[in-house]
Amino acid sequence: MKIGVFGTGVVGQVLAGKLDSLGHQVVLGTRDVKQSLSREGHDGIGRPPLKDWLAAHPKVKLATFAEAAAHGSLLVNATSGSGALHALKLAGEDHLNGKVMLDISNPLDFSQGFPPSLSVSNTDSLGEQIQRAFPQLKVVKGLNTLTCFLMVAPRTLPDTHHIFLCGNDAGAKGEVRTLLSSFGWAKEEMIDLGDITNARGTEQLLPIWVRLYGAMQNPMFNFKVVVVPKQV
Amino acid sequence: MKIGVFGTGVVGQVLAGKLDSLGHQVVLGTRDVKQSLSREGHDGIGRPPLKDWLAAHPKVKLATFAEAAAHGSLLVNATSGSGALHALKLAGEDHLNGKVMLDISNPLDFSQGFPPSLSVSNTDSLGEQIQRAFPQLKVVKGLNTLTCFLMVAPRTLPDTHHIFLCGNDAGAKGEVRTLLSSFGWAKEEMIDLGDITNARGTEQLLPIWVRLYGAMQNPMFNFKVVVVPKQV
Repeated sequence: MKIGVFGTGVVGQVLAGKLDSLGHQVVLGTRDVKQSLSREGHDGIGRPPLKDWLAAHPKVKLATFAEAAAHGSLLVNATSGSGALHALKLAGEDHLNGKVMLDISNPLDFSQGFPPSLSVSNTDSLGEQIQRAFPQLKVVKGLNTLTCFLMVAPRTLPDTHHIFLCGNDAGAKGEVRTLLSSFGWAKEEMIDLGDITNARGTEQLLPIWVRLYGAMQNPMFNFKVVVVPKQV
Repeated sequence: MKIGVFGTGVVGQVLAGKLDSLGHQVVLGTRDVKQSLSREGHDGIGRPPLKDWLAAHPKVKLATFAEAAAHGSLLVNATSGSGALHALKLAGEDHLNGKVMLDISNPLDFSQGFPPSLSVSNTDSLGEQIQRAFPQLKVVKGLNTLTCFLMVAPRTLPDTHHIFLCGNDAGAKGEVRTLLSSFGWAKEEMIDLGDITNARGTEQLLPIWVRLYGAMQNPMFNFKVVVVPKQV
């Protein structure tokens, strides 16, 4: 499948790498290709520059947001939350309309340091802002509640665990489910919360996620919803 | 132990009932004793009136917030979030100072129906508001992320699962841990997130909790944090 991934940070790289390894034709979208390629040195978490990652993944192409959007029949938003709406504007509504987009971004605000707060929350969400800005894009919020290394390798954890999907289009959620199944997610691990307003729930999981990360000094965890079966 | 429980709703009743069954001397605090006793009929979730519950728990006494606070060497705040600060003002700072209070309340705002939003969130929390209003009260936020029926019977779930404690006083958190151990919580199931600002994390878990409840039509669930052991 032709897939456009927005964002060249660690989340974009890990998602694009996994999709590439599964045989998809992946274009990684960025604001300024030349600038992205010119970055030297390691990033804040010790990862090598993007050009080295691209050299190791020769089938993945780097292009503008607009080119990545035009290429993809399926889109993945892996930009930082603060840059998401601007990136999608640069992608261009004409390239987005009618397509399915898995939105992984979270509206994290690091302006006061760690742990971050949210730049939108409670009675609105970034998922809803994106859906309102691009009404004909089929936004599916998902995968935004765990580290990218587990998004693409869920079986790394020694137990069942869960992710949460929401969006207004049932068909779009079905396409995302199929994709995530190919990453190793079991059907019953993907909980459908309903329409896109439920992104308020999943984005507000981040404040405890970042605190658990801080307390455990380990991002390799996820939530399992443990249930008592209903008595009939 | 002498324990004062604020709030006569389902959370207060279930907590008070459990504490009573464990042999503690429990006083249940309310704003207006006469009014609380005069309530007839079943509440919104089909529970009988408070006076029937009290008749079934003859050792638990109903009293004012101030009397419950004066009685308790340990306090439990099980009021609705919207009423919490007012209830504690009625309890009286002199009766609170120096004591440990387990704060279970959540700032749920049902004014727009279900699912509720939060009346305080993101850059503040109800736990912090309470701690600021009563600086000499030792607030421990905890148990606010699951249904009360599981708070007092954690082994009902068929797996390990977790709760999150936060507060500024290490000794107070230790007292709460001891109490919760007596409910059946294992040591490693009680995750200490640090100081009271971390209530922002646990209170913002409610937006997804209420949505999971809505999606599953079953409140008998909790979160388990599944971790990949750190490589040494």
